[in-house]
Amino acid sequence: MRYDIVDTTTTIVAPATAAGGAVMVVRISGSRAIEIADSMFRSRRRLADCQGNTLHYGTLHDEHDEALDDVVVALFRAPHSYTGDDTAEITIHGSEHICSELIRLAIERGAQMATAGEFTRRAFLAGKMDLSRAEAVADIIASDSRWSHNIASTQMRGGYSEHLASLRDELLRLCSLLELELDFSEEDVEFADRRALYTILDEVGMQIEKLTSSFSLGNAIKNGVNVAIVGEPNVGKSTLLNALIEDDRAMVSDIAGTTRDTIEATTNIDGVLFRFVDTAGLRTTENELEQMGIDRTYQAIENAHVILHLCSAENPEFAPIKIDSSTKRYIKVINKIDRITSSDSIANVDAICISAKLHSGIDSLRDTLRSTVDTSKLNSNSVVVSNMRHYAALKSAGEALQSARIALHNNLSSELISEDIRQVLHHLGEITGEITSTDILNSIFSKFCIGK
Amino acid sequence: MRYDIVDTTTTIVAPATAAGGAVMVVRISGSRAIEIADSMFRSRRRLADCQGNTLHYGTLHDEHDEALDDVVVALFRAPHSYTGDDTAEITIHGSEHICSELIRLAIERGAQMATAGEFTRRAFLAGKMDLSRAEAVADIIASDSRWSHNIASTQMRGGYSEHLASLRDELLRLCSLLELELDFSEEDVEFADRRALYTILDEVGMQIEKLTSSFSLGNAIKNGVNVAIVGEPNVGKSTLLNALIEDDRAMVSDIAGTTRDTIEATTNIDGVLFRFVDTAGLRTTENELEQMGIDRTYQAIENAHVILHLCSAENPEFAPIKIDSSTKRYIKVINKIDRITSSDSIANVDAICISAKLHSGIDSLRDTLRSTVDTSKLNSNSVVVSNMRHYAALKSAGEALQSARIALHNNLSSELISEDIRQVLHHLGEITGEITSTDILNSIFSKFCIGK
Repeated sequence: MRYDIVDTTTTIVAPATAAGGAVMVVRISGSRAIEIADSMFRSRRRLADCQGNTLHYGTLHDEHDEALDDVVVALFRAPHSYTGDDTAEITIHGSEHICSELIRLAIERGAQMATAGEFTRRAFLAGKMDLSRAEAVADIIASDSRWSHNIASTQMRGGYSEHLASLRDELLRLCSLLELELDFSEEDVEFADRRALYTILDEVGMQIEKLTSSFSLGNAIKNGVNVAIVGEPNVGKSTLLNALIEDDRAMVSDIAGTTRDTIEATTNIDGVLFRFVDTAGLRTTENELEQMGIDRTYQAIENAHVILHLCSAENPEFAPIKIDSSTKRYIKVINKIDRITSSDSIANVDAICISAKLHSGIDSLRDTLRSTVDTSKLNSNSVVVSNMRHYAALKSAGEALQSARIALHNNLSSELISEDIRQVLHHLGEITGEITSTDILNSIFSKFCIGK
Repeated sequence: MRYDIVDTTTTIVAPATAAGGAVMVVRISGSRAIEIADSMFRSRRRLADCQGNTLHYGTLHDEHDEALDDVVVALFRAPHSYTGDDTAEITIHGSEHICSELIRLAIERGAQMATAGEFTRRAFLAGKMDLSRAEAVADIIASDSRWSHNIASTQMRGGYSEHLASLRDELLRLCSLLELELDFSEEDVEFADRRALYTILDEVGMQIEKLTSSFSLGNAIKNGVNVAIVGEPNVGKSTLLNALIEDDRAMVSDIAGTTRDTIEATTNIDGVLFRFVDTAGLRTTENELEQMGIDRTYQAIENAHVILHLCSAENPEFAPIKIDSSTKRYIKVINKIDRITSSDSIANVDAICISAKLHSGIDSLRDTLRSTVDTSKLNSNSVVVSNMRHYAALKSAGEALQSARIALHNNLSSELISEDIRQVLHHLGEITGEITSTDILNSIFSKFCIGK
């Protein structure tokens, strides 16, 4: 076994749903799952005597045999469960008290609290899914817009894995030809036509490059596009934030400097998530608390993909802000156009004119924001990389491939070329989990939520 | 039918769990539930062909037949479900996007979005539980401490209903005897021994009084004990809040007036929930925003069960605050005892001495707070009223009973006595739902969460 360090013989328990709903589900999985569930569950029949894929109504009892709740147990028997092990999913009323009591009882009877992602990790180790599909499960859960769901769903359904597998097959075929030459090295034969080799490496390189370059789009869609709303005090930044998200998120008053903390709010524009940060107004101040807020404003600019620089139509000047225009979009906005009677003063300013208070111009501003993200490349067949780990592996694969091309170009030995291609295969294999280590698995699954 | 205004023939849909977990559950219930679930679910077999209480793995598809997610459907067939109707509970990955797509598809195929509490309302209308038990389901879900769970659990399990039922039986027996007298009114007989009648009314009156008076305890335990932390600026109110809840909830600085908004945080002390409100410091101010905060402080005092009045050991004086001591507990606390070298100045002040910053004296303050709630009366058999509606009904029942006792005392006709007792029965029946109206049901179930 490759992963013998991980103990999969224990039985694990965790809530699978968030707190706060009408019901909650607690998942127990492992060889003793059914026995442990039976020890606290009273029903017409013992779970141990029941078939898998069945539902059982009964009551949950604590160690003093006091009834805690009326529950339904979903019983899954190995290997027909998410993890591949025996599993009991107990639906309780949505009370954190009952949930924690249930988990306490399970632990007292020998279960262990599941670590983050441990259920999915077990599914991966049981061969139920490859690594990139397991990671897509976490992305599916986190996806909060149509496009981020599309990317994660394609990945979970294996579209991505299949694409990588076809690249790997191609490269493996090359490798075996090159390595065959090694066996006959004294005879100086070439099984692999060097020109065809070059074409294939070019083709694979372009595929890898395409995947790598899709990351900036994939990342923006997955994590949301960060938009910092900046400007002098009292130009209406908080009012604009409220207008963009159509809610009263930020406290608004006529008093300059009302916003101290940076305030975040998200909204979905045509299937893409935008994450707005309303910032403290930029001005020189003696006030210690206000200065703390202004420092946070610069931090928000640093983290943003898009800067909305706001000024008032009454004083349409944009104080210069230092922005790296190669990585950030900078959009000028003139607010409070309802306050001026003539548009002469703003006629020559290249900016979007709005009145956040009257909601005028907001739709066109939303369109401009949406146009910063080009989703036209996305369709159900296209594969977009949205995972930082995959991006890093693809980068390394691309570098190794470039090195193979140079070796080929310089007519180096098939041994060296083949070694480079093996490196490419290694990095592609990291993505799907053919090549991996316990450390990598720990790092991947620790980012999952508990209960998944 | 008593409730023919409510349409129970439709099929309803709603998420049954909160967003944010590893998985979410969407519940579809009603005569078309299985057909609607089948229309979007692909698996080895159609749900329509499967038995109830079974689990089915498959994929969820949208109207373009694109796969949305891998799901598990729990199938319940009438009458063996929570509502008594056919029900499909679909477990999806915990994504709000998938959840809203699933609900959209169900609605397009004829389901209606469930109103708050509609699943439980249907369970009540199907005779699966009486009204006080249905209400206990909402309380169970809301219960966030051991004691509030105990109260709700006793109520859901029917302890409360049984207690009321025995009172009602007793009164009904009285009524029938009294009403029998009416049939023989010309003969002037007394079937009901007036002295025995008096004893029984006294007994029932005491029971109702006991339930009514348990409400103040029940309410504090159910909703949490409101504690307002008040005092002049910079005496350490926010630091005390953070110390009491063992977290950094409130922003703390040495600058007087840092807290503007009232900040709320809860903590569980020995099974009872306390709800602390950190308030803006009380002082005269010209600052408009600060004055808004101070107005909120007075509001917080108004709503509190307990007032923690804080002052600094460096200036151990408590400015008078108007407090109704019959309904509120007032506790004086001297903070910053680490700042003084001699305790002479605070020797004669009747207050708890602490250093919130150094966490000294906090445990004893928590003990004092906990002692404001007497849970010694609670054991697994005792019935405690925690529901405002039940309290009001019991109050009315008590008044009608008092009126019956007066009528009896004044030797009024059995007709009048019996009418008063019928009133008592009416009000007790409101609690369990024997006597109710659509308006009352609407008001009760609208307080439930969606999906329950």
